[in-house]
Amino acid sequence: MNIYDISKKTGVSIATVSRVINGSANVSEKTRSKVLAAIDELGYTPNVFARGLGLNTMKTIGIMCADSSDPYLARAVYHIEQDLRKNNYDSLLSCTGYDHDVKEKCMTMLLSKRVDAVVLVGSNYIEKDEQQNNYIKNAADTVPVMIVNGVLNTPNVYCTVCDDRAAIYEVTENFIRSGRRDLLYIYNSHSYSGTKKLDGFRAAAKDAGIALPEERMHFINSHNVTVQSAKQAVAEIAEKGIKFDGVITSDDIIAVGVLKYARDAGITVPDELFVAGYNNFDISECCEPELTSVDNKLETLCRHCVSTLMDILSDDGSLPKKTVFSAEIIERSTTKFTK
Amino acid sequence: MNIYDISKKTGVSIATVSRVINGSANVSEKTRSKVLAAIDELGYTPNVFARGLGLNTMKTIGIMCADSSDPYLARAVYHIEQDLRKNNYDSLLSCTGYDHDVKEKCMTMLLSKRVDAVVLVGSNYIEKDEQQNNYIKNAADTVPVMIVNGVLNTPNVYCTVCDDRAAIYEVTENFIRSGRRDLLYIYNSHSYSGTKKLDGFRAAAKDAGIALPEERMHFINSHNVTVQSAKQAVAEIAEKGIKFDGVITSDDIIAVGVLKYARDAGITVPDELFVAGYNNFDISECCEPELTSVDNKLETLCRHCVSTLMDILSDDGSLPKKTVFSAEIIERSTTKFTK
Repeated sequence: MNIYDISKKTGVSIATVSRVINGSANVSEKTRSKVLAAIDELGYTPNVFARGLGLNTMKTIGIMCADSSDPYLARAVYHIEQDLRKNNYDSLLSCTGYDHDVKEKCMTMLLSKRVDAVVLVGSNYIEKDEQQNNYIKNAADTVPVMIVNGVLNTPNVYCTVCDDRAAIYEVTENFIRSGRRDLLYIYNSHSYSGTKKLDGFRAAAKDAGIALPEERMHFINSHNVTVQSAKQAVAEIAEKGIKFDGVITSDDIIAVGVLKYARDAGITVPDELFVAGYNNFDISECCEPELTSVDNKLETLCRHCVSTLMDILSDDGSLPKKTVFSAEIIERSTTKFTK
Repeated sequence: MNIYDISKKTGVSIATVSRVINGSANVSEKTRSKVLAAIDELGYTPNVFARGLGLNTMKTIGIMCADSSDPYLARAVYHIEQDLRKNNYDSLLSCTGYDHDVKEKCMTMLLSKRVDAVVLVGSNYIEKDEQQNNYIKNAADTVPVMIVNGVLNTPNVYCTVCDDRAAIYEVTENFIRSGRRDLLYIYNSHSYSGTKKLDGFRAAAKDAGIALPEERMHFINSHNVTVQSAKQAVAEIAEKGIKFDGVITSDDIIAVGVLKYARDAGITVPDELFVAGYNNFDISECCEPELTSVDNKLETLCRHCVSTLMDILSDDGSLPKKTVFSAEIIERSTTKFTK
């Protein structure tokens, strides 16, 4: 809804609507009443007034992330905000949680604050049920929408992702080449990126001719996995009598839980058990042995996202709708890969 | 600046100023011009128009934190947003960095988005130079300002803090009672809370009659200490020939760096060396041995901050300007305290 809608609704010219909004005296009382009634009826928000007032940009970008206490998301937000600031844009962050209705509400709220664009951080925003993504498509009618590590193919939406599938495929390949065949994959997200990682694990095992019963892919149903809950999960798998000599995980914290389990169970890492994390964050260097992990090039993703956005906002020609960066395996002491 | 300033400046009644802002016709052209000129001159922002329009609340709270990738700050923001959402308030987060001018700019930006209050998270907002805090005092003229883990004594500012001084005092006391006398304190912040912690260390040593040359209090000049940089710092202290059997730190990550140093140097923890962290975050359970740390009751602080704010916004009588919660020492395997 904007000044044009008011004009259309009332049959009053845009210039006159603008004069009413500006409180100018050069408007008849009858016209003024009509415009104010339309404003009331259409549920005008103050930001639209401001747009009407000619303040077309506040140089502010809205950022949405599910959970600021998730280290991956928090770091991404940090990089994006730093880069936006370098480009003289302010950021407004809304932490939406994982509930669809709240996400939608937060989007509406950010748009009402007259942001110039919205950046969605993390793959939790893209739902398999296409209907659930409509609020993103609608937002893209108004402002450019950037997605970091998620893909939605729709006009005015720009996606920057890491090739998580290829990364987990490569980790798994390394495990297998090094003689590990009793593999486990432990993960805690069905998001876009979570699905890609699982695909990579399955594909690598399949391509190597390794059977993979479902029980070897264990889902921890929590967005906030702790070392303790991950340790518990792997202990329960072992109790079921499932043997494993390699554990690949979707997140460093899960891998640290596996290391804690191994230590208690007297299992030597990496000799008896290979363990790999994902994200390559601080904790991969905090644990003992230090963790082999995947650097998903988060900073590169965020940089690219912001620079693309800056190009969009300055109308710099046609830009790629999707960019994919490859990840890098950082081998530390929880694996001993055969080269 | 608000409607009262316009009234004062022009000598026009508040009701009339409001009528001008509302675009009402019942105002003489002369008065309207005078008010509009004052609005222009005082640099009125659209939010004030919106307030004038009677849209007094958007149920949105502005949050400022220095760095969303700092786990302490990220977790605090998370708790505050969750609690605000439960109270049907949206949050707008601005990550300001540590530069004073940017902090001030972010405050202005949040106020221009018509937030109902501002929450400052972390003690980095309170400067020793009182002048630097003026922008907070000015903001408090417009909306309530809540500070989590920082103190500023000024009207309409409400502070919730953890007694970090007492916590470090108690940790140090425990080290000394357990026979450790060659103590080091390693820290990386001169913020309000950073200063309190250092005070606690000094006081406990002094009260126990332990001499404390300056070299035993080591400052790491970085907001983003890593395990590696902390390890490096403690290695350099050791190279200078400074002996130590107990290291107390202002942050878990520094303590993990000390553990890594000890492991490389063949020093047994806790037998030859006690180590204590602060914050009691994930990484205190990731490292080996698991880290004795201080639970600073962050969730309690944040809960209290939001509930106080809700009381303020519903005009619920007179509220305490400052609330102090005590911390709790969580002993794990890097110390063996004599009870």
